[in-house]
Amino acid sequence: MDAREIRNLLEAVRRRRLSPARALERLRHLPFEDLGFAKIDHHRSLRQGYAEVIFARGKTPTQVAAIVRQMLRASHSNVLITRADPSIFRAVRRLTRAARYYPLSGVIAIRRSKSITGKGLILVLSAGTSDIPIAEEARLTAELMGNRVAAIYDVGVAGLHRLLDHRRQLAEARVIVVVAGMEGALPSVVGGMVGVPVIAVPTSTGYGASFGGLAALLGMLNSCASNVSVVNIDNGFGAGCVASVINRLP
Amino acid sequence: MDAREIRNLLEAVRRRRLSPARALERLRHLPFEDLGFAKIDHHRSLRQGYAEVIFARGKTPTQVAAIVRQMLRASHSNVLITRADPSIFRAVRRLTRAARYYPLSGVIAIRRSKSITGKGLILVLSAGTSDIPIAEEARLTAELMGNRVAAIYDVGVAGLHRLLDHRRQLAEARVIVVVAGMEGALPSVVGGMVGVPVIAVPTSTGYGASFGGLAALLGMLNSCASNVSVVNIDNGFGAGCVASVINRLP
Amino acid sequence: MDAREIRNLLEAVRRRRLSPARALERLRHLPFEDLGFAKIDHHRSLRQGYAEVIFARGKTPTQVAAIVRQMLRASHSNVLITRADPSIFRAVRRLTRAARYYPLSGVIAIRRSKSITGKGLILVLSAGTSDIPIAEEARLTAELMGNRVAAIYDVGVAGLHRLLDHRRQLAEARVIVVVAGMEGALPSVVGGMVGVPVIAVPTSTGYGASFGGLAALLGMLNSCASNVSVVNIDNGFGAGCVASVINRLP
Amino acid sequence: MDAREIRNLLEAVRRRRLSPARALERLRHLPFEDLGFAKIDHHRSLRQGYAEVIFARGKTPTQVAAIVRQMLRASHSNVLITRADPSIFRAVRRLTRAARYYPLSGVIAIRRSKSITGKGLILVLSAGTSDIPIAEEARLTAELMGNRVAAIYDVGVAGLHRLLDHRRQLAEARVIVVVAGMEGALPSVVGGMVGVPVIAVPTSTGYGASFGGLAALLGMLNSCASNVSVVNIDNGFGAGCVASVINRLP
Amino acid sequence: MDAREIRNLLEAVRRRRLSPARALERLRHLPFEDLGFAKIDHHRSLRQGYAEVIFARGKTPTQVAAIVRQMLRASHSNVLITRADPSIFRAVRRLTRAARYYPLSGVIAIRRSKSITGKGLILVLSAGTSDIPIAEEARLTAELMGNRVAAIYDVGVAGLHRLLDHRRQLAEARVIVVVAGMEGALPSVVGGMVGVPVIAVPTSTGYGASFGGLAALLGMLNSCASNVSVVNIDNGFGAGCVASVINRLP
Amino acid sequence: MDAREIRNLLEAVRRRRLSPARALERLRHLPFEDLGFAKIDHHRSLRQGYAEVIFARGKTPTQVAAIVRQMLRASHSNVLITRADPSIFRAVRRLTRAARYYPLSGVIAIRRSKSITGKGLILVLSAGTSDIPIAEEARLTAELMGNRVAAIYDVGVAGLHRLLDHRRQLAEARVIVVVAGMEGALPSVVGGMVGVPVIAVPTSTGYGASFGGLAALLGMLNSCASNVSVVNIDNGFGAGCVASVINRLP
Amino acid sequence: MDAREIRNLLEAVRRRRLSPARALERLRHLPFEDLGFAKIDHHRSLRQGYAEVIFARGKTPTQVAAIVRQMLRASHSNVLITRADPSIFRAVRRLTRAARYYPLSGVIAIRRSKSITGKGLILVLSAGTSDIPIAEEARLTAELMGNRVAAIYDVGVAGLHRLLDHRRQLAEARVIVVVAGMEGALPSVVGGMVGVPVIAVPTSTGYGASFGGLAALLGMLNSCASNVSVVNIDNGFGAGCVASVINRLP
Amino acid sequence: MDAREIRNLLEAVRRRRLSPARALERLRHLPFEDLGFAKIDHHRSLRQGYAEVIFARGKTPTQVAAIVRQMLRASHSNVLITRADPSIFRAVRRLTRAARYYPLSGVIAIRRSKSITGKGLILVLSAGTSDIPIAEEARLTAELMGNRVAAIYDVGVAGLHRLLDHRRQLAEARVIVVVAGMEGALPSVVGGMVGVPVIAVPTSTGYGASFGGLAALLGMLNSCASNVSVVNIDNGFGAGCVASVINRLP
Repeated sequence: MDAREIRNLLEAVRRRRLSPARALERLRHLPFEDLGFAKIDHHRSLRQGYAEVIFARGKTPTQVAAIVRQMLRASHSNVLITRADPSIFRAVRRLTRAARYYPLSGVIAIRRSKSITGKGLILVLSAGTSDIPIAEEARLTAELMGNRVAAIYDVGVAGLHRLLDHRRQLAEARVIVVVAGMEGALPSVVGGMVGVPVIAVPTSTGYGASFGGLAALLGMLNSCASNVSVVNIDNGFGAGCVASVINRLP
Repeated sequence: MDAREIRNLLEAVRRRRLSPARALERLRHLPFEDLGFAKIDHHRSLRQGYAEVIFARGKTPTQVAAIVRQMLRASHSNVLITRADPSIFRAVRRLTRAARYYPLSGVIAIRRSKSITGKGLILVLSAGTSDIPIAEEARLTAELMGNRVAAIYDVGVAGLHRLLDHRRQLAEARVIVVVAGMEGALPSVVGGMVGVPVIAVPTSTGYGASFGGLAALLGMLNSCASNVSVVNIDNGFGAGCVASVINRLP
Repeated sequence: MDAREIRNLLEAVRRRRLSPARALERLRHLPFEDLGFAKIDHHRSLRQGYAEVIFARGKTPTQVAAIVRQMLRASHSNVLITRADPSIFRAVRRLTRAARYYPLSGVIAIRRSKSITGKGLILVLSAGTSDIPIAEEARLTAELMGNRVAAIYDVGVAGLHRLLDHRRQLAEARVIVVVAGMEGALPSVVGGMVGVPVIAVPTSTGYGASFGGLAALLGMLNSCASNVSVVNIDNGFGAGCVASVINRLP
Repeated sequence: MDAREIRNLLEAVRRRRLSPARALERLRHLPFEDLGFAKIDHHRSLRQGYAEVIFARGKTPTQVAAIVRQMLRASHSNVLITRADPSIFRAVRRLTRAARYYPLSGVIAIRRSKSITGKGLILVLSAGTSDIPIAEEARLTAELMGNRVAAIYDVGVAGLHRLLDHRRQLAEARVIVVVAGMEGALPSVVGGMVGVPVIAVPTSTGYGASFGGLAALLGMLNSCASNVSVVNIDNGFGAGCVASVINRLP
Repeated sequence: MDAREIRNLLEAVRRRRLSPARALERLRHLPFEDLGFAKIDHHRSLRQGYAEVIFARGKTPTQVAAIVRQMLRASHSNVLITRADPSIFRAVRRLTRAARYYPLSGVIAIRRSKSITGKGLILVLSAGTSDIPIAEEARLTAELMGNRVAAIYDVGVAGLHRLLDHRRQLAEARVIVVVAGMEGALPSVVGGMVGVPVIAVPTSTGYGASFGGLAALLGMLNSCASNVSVVNIDNGFGAGCVASVINRLP
Repeated sequence: MDAREIRNLLEAVRRRRLSPARALERLRHLPFEDLGFAKIDHHRSLRQGYAEVIFARGKTPTQVAAIVRQMLRASHSNVLITRADPSIFRAVRRLTRAARYYPLSGVIAIRRSKSITGKGLILVLSAGTSDIPIAEEARLTAELMGNRVAAIYDVGVAGLHRLLDHRRQLAEARVIVVVAGMEGALPSVVGGMVGVPVIAVPTSTGYGASFGGLAALLGMLNSCASNVSVVNIDNGFGAGCVASVINRLP
Repeated sequence: MDAREIRNLLEAVRRRRLSPARALERLRHLPFEDLGFAKIDHHRSLRQGYAEVIFARGKTPTQVAAIVRQMLRASHSNVLITRADPSIFRAVRRLTRAARYYPLSGVIAIRRSKSITGKGLILVLSAGTSDIPIAEEARLTAELMGNRVAAIYDVGVAGLHRLLDHRRQLAEARVIVVVAGMEGALPSVVGGMVGVPVIAVPTSTGYGASFGGLAALLGMLNSCASNVSVVNIDNGFGAGCVASVINRLP
Repeated sequence: MDAREIRNLLEAVRRRRLSPARALERLRHLPFEDLGFAKIDHHRSLRQGYAEVIFARGKTPTQVAAIVRQMLRASHSNVLITRADPSIFRAVRRLTRAARYYPLSGVIAIRRSKSITGKGLILVLSAGTSDIPIAEEARLTAELMGNRVAAIYDVGVAGLHRLLDHRRQLAEARVIVVVAGMEGALPSVVGGMVGVPVIAVPTSTGYGASFGGLAALLGMLNSCASNVSVVNIDNGFGAGCVASVINRLP
């Protein structure tokens, strides 16, 4: 496609409908806008089929609202705001009634499209109750990116029967996101039970030698199940994205 | 399927074709053999569609050969042996002429099935020449698991034009494996250029503050591209597996 | 007992069978011998019921043999030598025909007593084949300290059915030692299945983000099963000791 | 027992008192309830003889109270709530007058059973005054799990005479929990003085190169006393559990 | 110059215009003043051409004001105060109207000299919006030290087209400061595009395996572009200084 | 001395002025009191010539006051309270007018003895202004333990002339304490200039790759000056003690 | 320039001297050759004025020789081969008599151009004798890139007079590379003495808490001298490059 | 002294016995020689009373011999060569018959002066047998620097009675060096038993979570005994120096 656009442009130059100078200008021109403090790339959703996403931490309510306003104008995609506090939600809510806040995970969702583009079911598991906020971030991300999503929480490996009880649901999923803190063993166990991709998310829950999620992260990277790959500690959003990109594969 | 088997078994009990004691025995029976030093799970390839795999490091040539002999008898899957040295290859070669050794990556491949079960192309990229052994491990793993695979090496981010030159190939892949040591920046750049899953493999190449691949690993986990997930340092095999599992999704 | 000895001594002083000076000397006297390069504490086996133990790494065959000779003279306990290479075994073998070498784990065992002092069964599990050397060190240590010991190897969490198949044996053990490298998840799973103490031993097998066993160690320390405690990386000997001390409890 | 239940169930199928479909259902059914945010496993206390336990950190007073209410209904075990603040205590106190709060350690204890199931004495030692909160967590945990417990605090190794003064109490214990921050040397010294299991708990007290308890943790893992095993930093609860499991061994 | 001063002094001794005792005294005398809590080195700006700089964190408003007062008296250089909060600004503002506060980066600038001593343009790039505070610190530092400075923000590597769009500006710079958190890949990419020195500043933005900027720091140290050198995490001031020292080279 | 006491005791037994039972009791009796939450060892000051010391962090004002009251009664030593906040000072002040508070370093000093027992001058240096609190802790500790102490602050290595200016004072000291954060280079430079012991104290000042004082700590441990030894990060108290113990040597 | 080339190309299209298809092809065409195992970018020396460089570690003599042969054909630049062992030198020597080997630093230099393009003197300092190999790598790199270079070795901070003796040479340099292991303090001291850029290179010399150069690296990153920037541990080549890029600035 | 020399020089200038130019030259002249690869500072022994010392690791036998030859000519001090292998000893032995090799610790000692300058006894303790090489390095260093030295080995804290048995010797020492690997607890215990300075040396013995001596290092830095300071891992030489510097204090 890119190549075709350039060929058309070159064809226009050849037919003298476009001067070389302007062609050069267009070759350099890229479709993003500049708000001063953050460049919004409206084409990303075209290229990657993503919802528009804002990482709210470190941004003021005013800044987030400005970005959202631009997004709402420029496309009809869903908008996902992660790591948002109530003050940011209030600022966004003034822009649109469609905004909904999930305080547990700090997610704001603006649902504008209901089309399901994912091929199968994405299943989100969490090992403990304290992993639920990150699991919810993954669940909402995958949902807003156009997927059917189900979630099962509190199925850690020290009570194996809880997990085994959900065997059927595991078998139905096309992609599985597993969120776990502490020793991070759940992805290995789940990975050994299924034949589909497992995205592991370590969380920073725990204390002492958990070292802010390092223990879980290392555990997951060393998983002996070979269908497991890993994202950053507490990166529920990233896991939702990766799962979504996989689930969209034709 | 599992449920159905159990139902059949229960039906047999009900019809008194099977005593409760034997049913109990069968419920417990699981289909693996014991060689004393390693349990071979022949059903894994059924459950997960994998080739049979042996991690050779820490095993003697005799041990590896014994495992291979069992595998060759029990199924017709491809056999993949990773981290093997020439003495292991010699022991395996005596069992089958089909064994082929790739010294750069330490892989032994026994190709017995040519069927391609992967849906699309898996592309393997490496940032530097010293990352090639791990990239080859990924490439051979994916290939033996029934995929079309292509590879482009030495396209690190400090010479961006090299990578941009391969834009078309990037666009054709269904899954991309990116192998990089040092700063591990290539997966982020590639991730930003495509809309498909990117599996990042940090390598232990480099020196000093590379800390055995830690720098690359952390770089990849912190990737700002949201279609990137990560496997262990030097785990070309794992990346090939994950890519294969994704590529097999219907 | 200590108190009684001192009381006897004081009584002897009172009855003038012992001068204060000599009493003082005896109060200070402690029962160990000095070989110049290592103090052997023959009373340790009295106090703790241990076999005599030598950590051979960093000692020459001559040094180890000298220590063994003293031990053989001073008591009738079993002698356990860990981290020994064949040259050490040859030196020890010259002293006694009873010495037996286990090359996989580097253990030399001199069995002189067959009495079983442990109350129940100690079960040693290993997650992978490369964890077996450390598991064997634990098994032999526990055995030489007077316990019934059984071992099940290669029952990692990514193939859960392998472990579940041994459920009955798990239920029979009084103490369980679980040896695992990579993500170190097996102790958590086992801990959740039984009601007895589980001693977890991380191993330095694995590569990359295993960081010499750190991943497994952290995983085990963060175990969500509350009957799990941990010893040092690769410390099969320590795990065998702890299990033995527990199993000897009346 | 498990096997017997299944055999009974299979017998019922055979006698046609139970249809295969329902048997299948029952085989899958596991005895836990779902409160939405946390699964309570009432059978854990059956399987492991534990008190019911809630880790309160990260849970709201309302959530903790809901879990407690279920627990009080479902069994007559003691209930132990760790890492609780006063607001949680107030919520729990409304449910039962039996709840008692220990602010130093953040423990809430609901004592409902007075039976002592532990065989001997569990002794809890702390090295410094700042280790007392974690030591108290261990002490209360062991006590609520049905043990006789004694405690000696502030007996660090730089004032050895303090520890030696308690020699007799050390000799009386069946299991010893040693809580220490800073250099974590106390378990080694205690381990060398006794012949029973020592559970070491590193604490995050200290500053600078204590690195949040890492120094004490590493010190304990490297203990030269071979009857020492270790739990996570600040994990007084875990140490109390492990000690309790050991002390309950027949 | 130093040598000349000493020679003059020695000449004066020789001509008996200066006694040896006083000469000794002068040899020892160094040109700084002592405020009790901080030595101000007025000659530093002579030796290095720097603006006067105060690192405000950990100092009280009163202390900072006292240092500023001395600086204003002793020279006519610009004064740069980093890591300052509003209360410090209020204290400084009372001393001079020329003080200006940049709350985003915590910088207070007192501009007293407008001469441009830098030879070319210093360009400051940031990868993400959350890196802007540190980038601003670098920009203001370089500006107050007498340089022309330009800045381009939010040009991270996962949206490569954003960076490529600024190719011309990159080509115009004499020194480039690149500020990036997360994977810290931007300096490598920029370094590969230009032939001038690139000063890389890792930032502590990000979460999880960013480990407070460690990931970005290691990534930059392992850069495969050979014109990149690195300063401390969040050290925008240092990067501005280094860029300034380079840009001043004749 | 100890031996003599025991000999006297044994003599008393022999002369039947003391029964064996009571002698045993006295052998066990050690001279410390128990306040429940902290054992005060009044003999420590006898054994080591120390002032009485309380580490206040983690203790309530009431607890500290109770310990101080005991100390004031039991001896006439100076009392030093470190890491104290104003509320603790108020509680202590009520007990004695002699208490004085140094808010910068959080030290409370109760001076009761003016005798100088140290042989020479202890010199305390700090590299930067933010290291002064720790330097002050060292200075006050050494002073209360009976030493002449001098201090020179803000003489870091990047302005070498500042340090060289104090050469004479360096030459006069018998022990030198050097307090430095950031790169921790000052002890090496000072160590190379003098022939007396240098006690290095890393501080947690700095940011980014200072990692809470780790950089300074490692720098000091790797010092190429061979008269340098090191204490814990921010351990001004420890440095003051070590310097004092050295300075008291006859 | 780039823009001009593209404009020329577009002009050619317009004048129909070039078809759009071929123009497209040329737009994509980048000037590098592919040897299969390594892409050589001959234009890099054009873009950055570098010598051609090969990092030999991990490459066979045959591979290095093949790359060198291509380089000798394609340009007249100097060729620098780092981390080379004698077997590589022998292979390279067969291609050209101009190759010279520096065994201390493992550098092979092929000098083909004698033009000095650097503006001033680059001075290379080393703290200890064991840092000399890395310092030599920096020196040879800078020299082959067309600079006047001088070197002073063994001037560590614990013998300050050695360094002060070379004050004049320090004052003459335009860029200074400082190589130091252990505590890495030399760059701070040098940085405080001069007003030019200082490139700090930590080395992995030392032992124990040097942790493979980590101590020196952290020390340098925390330097209190504000003209210091840092490259990777043992990266003498990188420091030589950075110094060269700075020294070439007009 | 320094000041007097300069005053004399200035006086000479004044009396015109010395020209300013030559005086300048002499002010700059420092008394060391340059062998090309290492500067020998003969005055160090004057300034610090040290023996001449060579750190042999990384130097060739020829280089060490050349340095030794210079040292033997320039002074009559003892010469101490650390980390030397037999080939270095052979080269040194050719220069002087007085050279003696201690293979356990890798020390070569050339004794030329027998004067004892230390005031009291230096006592060297080691915790385990594998710590002896480092302890010997400390012992020989202290001895060659003119001290009476005694050593007690294998008195680790898990067998406390061994240490208590040597109480009298502990009481006689003026300075104590304590060498320990594993948990590094011995210095704390010893520190609590004596009132003199304790220099702690962590060793890299041990395995697993010893992390090359890190565990022992952290343990010692966190020592609760306040007369303990620490040197680098395995730095027996440094401990011997520090002890020597302390013991020489008048």
